[in-house]
Amino acid sequence: MDTIVAIATPTGVGGLAVIRISGDKAKLIAEQHLEKQLQPRRATFGVFRHEGREIDEVVATYFAAPHSYTTDDVVEISCHGSLSVQQAILAACVSSGARMAEPGEFTQRAFLGGRLNLSQAEAVADLIDSTNAASHTLAVSQLRGAYSQRLQSLRQQFVNLTSLLELELDFSEEDVEFADRRQLLAIVDALHNECRTLADTFRQGNAIKNGVPVAIIGRPNVGKSTLLNALLGDDRAIVSDIAGTTRDTIEDTLTIDGITFRFIDTAGIRQSTDQIETAGIERSYAAAAKAQVVLYLVAADAVQSQVEAELSELAKHIDLTSCHLILLQTKTDTLTPVSLTLPAANSIIPIAARQGVGIDTLKQVLAESIGSVAIDSPMVTNQRHYEALRHIAEIMPRIRESLQNNTPADLVVIDIRDALYHLGTITGEVASTEVLSNIFHRFCVGK
Amino acid sequence: MDTIVAIATPTGVGGLAVIRISGDKAKLIAEQHLEKQLQPRRATFGVFRHEGREIDEVVATYFAAPHSYTTDDVVEISCHGSLSVQQAILAACVSSGARMAEPGEFTQRAFLGGRLNLSQAEAVADLIDSTNAASHTLAVSQLRGAYSQRLQSLRQQFVNLTSLLELELDFSEEDVEFADRRQLLAIVDALHNECRTLADTFRQGNAIKNGVPVAIIGRPNVGKSTLLNALLGDDRAIVSDIAGTTRDTIEDTLTIDGITFRFIDTAGIRQSTDQIETAGIERSYAAAAKAQVVLYLVAADAVQSQVEAELSELAKHIDLTSCHLILLQTKTDTLTPVSLTLPAANSIIPIAARQGVGIDTLKQVLAESIGSVAIDSPMVTNQRHYEALRHIAEIMPRIRESLQNNTPADLVVIDIRDALYHLGTITGEVASTEVLSNIFHRFCVGK
Repeated sequence: MDTIVAIATPTGVGGLAVIRISGDKAKLIAEQHLEKQLQPRRATFGVFRHEGREIDEVVATYFAAPHSYTTDDVVEISCHGSLSVQQAILAACVSSGARMAEPGEFTQRAFLGGRLNLSQAEAVADLIDSTNAASHTLAVSQLRGAYSQRLQSLRQQFVNLTSLLELELDFSEEDVEFADRRQLLAIVDALHNECRTLADTFRQGNAIKNGVPVAIIGRPNVGKSTLLNALLGDDRAIVSDIAGTTRDTIEDTLTIDGITFRFIDTAGIRQSTDQIETAGIERSYAAAAKAQVVLYLVAADAVQSQVEAELSELAKHIDLTSCHLILLQTKTDTLTPVSLTLPAANSIIPIAARQGVGIDTLKQVLAESIGSVAIDSPMVTNQRHYEALRHIAEIMPRIRESLQNNTPADLVVIDIRDALYHLGTITGEVASTEVLSNIFHRFCVGK
Repeated sequence: MDTIVAIATPTGVGGLAVIRISGDKAKLIAEQHLEKQLQPRRATFGVFRHEGREIDEVVATYFAAPHSYTTDDVVEISCHGSLSVQQAILAACVSSGARMAEPGEFTQRAFLGGRLNLSQAEAVADLIDSTNAASHTLAVSQLRGAYSQRLQSLRQQFVNLTSLLELELDFSEEDVEFADRRQLLAIVDALHNECRTLADTFRQGNAIKNGVPVAIIGRPNVGKSTLLNALLGDDRAIVSDIAGTTRDTIEDTLTIDGITFRFIDTAGIRQSTDQIETAGIERSYAAAAKAQVVLYLVAADAVQSQVEAELSELAKHIDLTSCHLILLQTKTDTLTPVSLTLPAANSIIPIAARQGVGIDTLKQVLAESIGSVAIDSPMVTNQRHYEALRHIAEIMPRIRESLQNNTPADLVVIDIRDALYHLGTITGEVASTEVLSNIFHRFCVGK
């Protein structure tokens, strides 16, 4: 296998940088440039030389196969974080027989070497991309294997099911029905339930990874922009004090208690005969329909019947039962809030956004709105995994039906193998080269 | 002494990041979060935890005092290069009693601990900032101590001189003149010469560190911009393929054979009665006067007498003897070059910039123009060092005069001590807190 090399630390200038070499020749290449022997796991100080020129004073650490990140021989060279030094060491290693690593190639080797399964490898990428505490915790949990264990247990139950059916198959000529079909049905139902439950965590998991979608809805001039400014005003600094945090735009995201909320701007909603404006409002509704939390704004003096009418109009477009609805009574600095009774709303909060009144309460309610989820519990955060689980969940009723209809075991086993196949795509047991390549090319070079 | 902590790797997201902890509590803090014992120089894999939460899988390496970068106990924690992970580990260390390091504080401790002298510490900053091979080589050479050794030898000679004079001083009441003043004068002359030689390397050293200044001069429309485009066109990519290389502007610098050339744009020079235009031309001359290389452009059909006239006009403004003059005959695609004899010019090159003719030759000549300098030899690259050496060079004639006039030894010794003082400011033996603080605050945090 080729020996690969890459700068493993972030691009740029800093105190230190780390160059990582992995493969059969890693140790040889490093020792040649250091003119020193390396011992496993021992940090060795030396001068890295290339063609007689002193490149830098470095510390090299050798990780002997298989006890390394990639399971191959690995040497990590910690040098000064200068662009010139990093490039010179990289070039020296390449001239000595290493080749530049592809994106994610180190992690790909860890996967091929059996140190990580595919979902753990994907967790490494998620971990590196994590910018808030919740997505970070989810990724670490996934990397550490809790999620893999749950999948493994799922897999074991499928294997057991197959065994029971195959036993029947082996003796099929004797026309004996070994497995109690009712018992099998119970197992299938439990598995179906488990797959659905896991797939259902995707909405939450994806929201935590990519931000919880929050729609801000209300009639024009009810105070939507003022609210957004009040929410983002103070906290924007927290986001921006770490260079590189910002992905697309920070204007519309806010991290509260380690969870990122992604605000969806909607056009003010009102009755309109203008065709174009109506289309705009429809689009607002469509965007809001994807929201997990809806902040619905009304002026504080709006009476019960008016608010009820607005919410029932909203309910035509958005399934309010599947999202967390927070009703905000705005402009309490000039208007006196009306007492409302709204079973559909999870909370009713009076605010005066310009004065910051009620904003802390709102933040707390937002945090609590998804706070009931134990982030540490295994959760699907990956579209690919979600689709595999959905696929399995779709196969299950077919298996159930076959068992009920006393379909021959060999036909049932085909469906179970299909389910096992999809399960295997998550952990990588049956991943195709193309899928692997897609996954690892999303990584940065050097990991 | 406080235990300090910082992210040592470049800011941003990458495969790996390194958090560095230095101080008495470094080992304790790391062991507490890893729930593992660390052995000196041994890379230990573990899970970094904070308040029960798993932050990341990390590799920690402990460097026991004094065998560490700072000479204190140091632990380096190599974690996944996620912003969230880096911040969480940093925060955990701070909550366990470390404080955030100031810029350059690790290197400052290395200096205070005696592992590096001040000029070596400054070389660390230069090394990190180096973006081309020549400045990189200079900084490594300075870090490795060749330059310090030369200063040390200079210092020793001053100390010897003082000893000879103080011996005289001790026996002064007996009115005996021990030291042969002629011998002392020879030592002083040698020292003076050495200081001047070293100070003279500054122009070269500074040029290598910050780019060799090259002035492009010539009458309007002689092809200056076309030349600049031809020079920069192909090579700009080489500069920009490393993110973060660019400092101020890449438009005007070009790296050839690892040496950066900094082009100084000048307004076209011509006789003018317009007062404002004349002022502009004066400014061109002033800028060009700082250049180490002058590219003087004439049309290829300009005859000997005309070129001579232009150069003698140029010589009124620029000391052509102290710079490398390259005469370029332009537009050879349409004009036939006249044969010229110009002793002042180091080279005469016919070019057709638009067609790229002669550009490679020019680059080669540019590289050779400073190529005679052995970059590996000790060289002053630092303004502060240059000023100290200049100061010493100014003291030397006074010492010489005193010795010639048989000034009492105790008065001569005062001047020598002054010279020693300035020498000490370079290596840091006598650096004030203020100077130290200025130097180390120029570093990045984490180094």
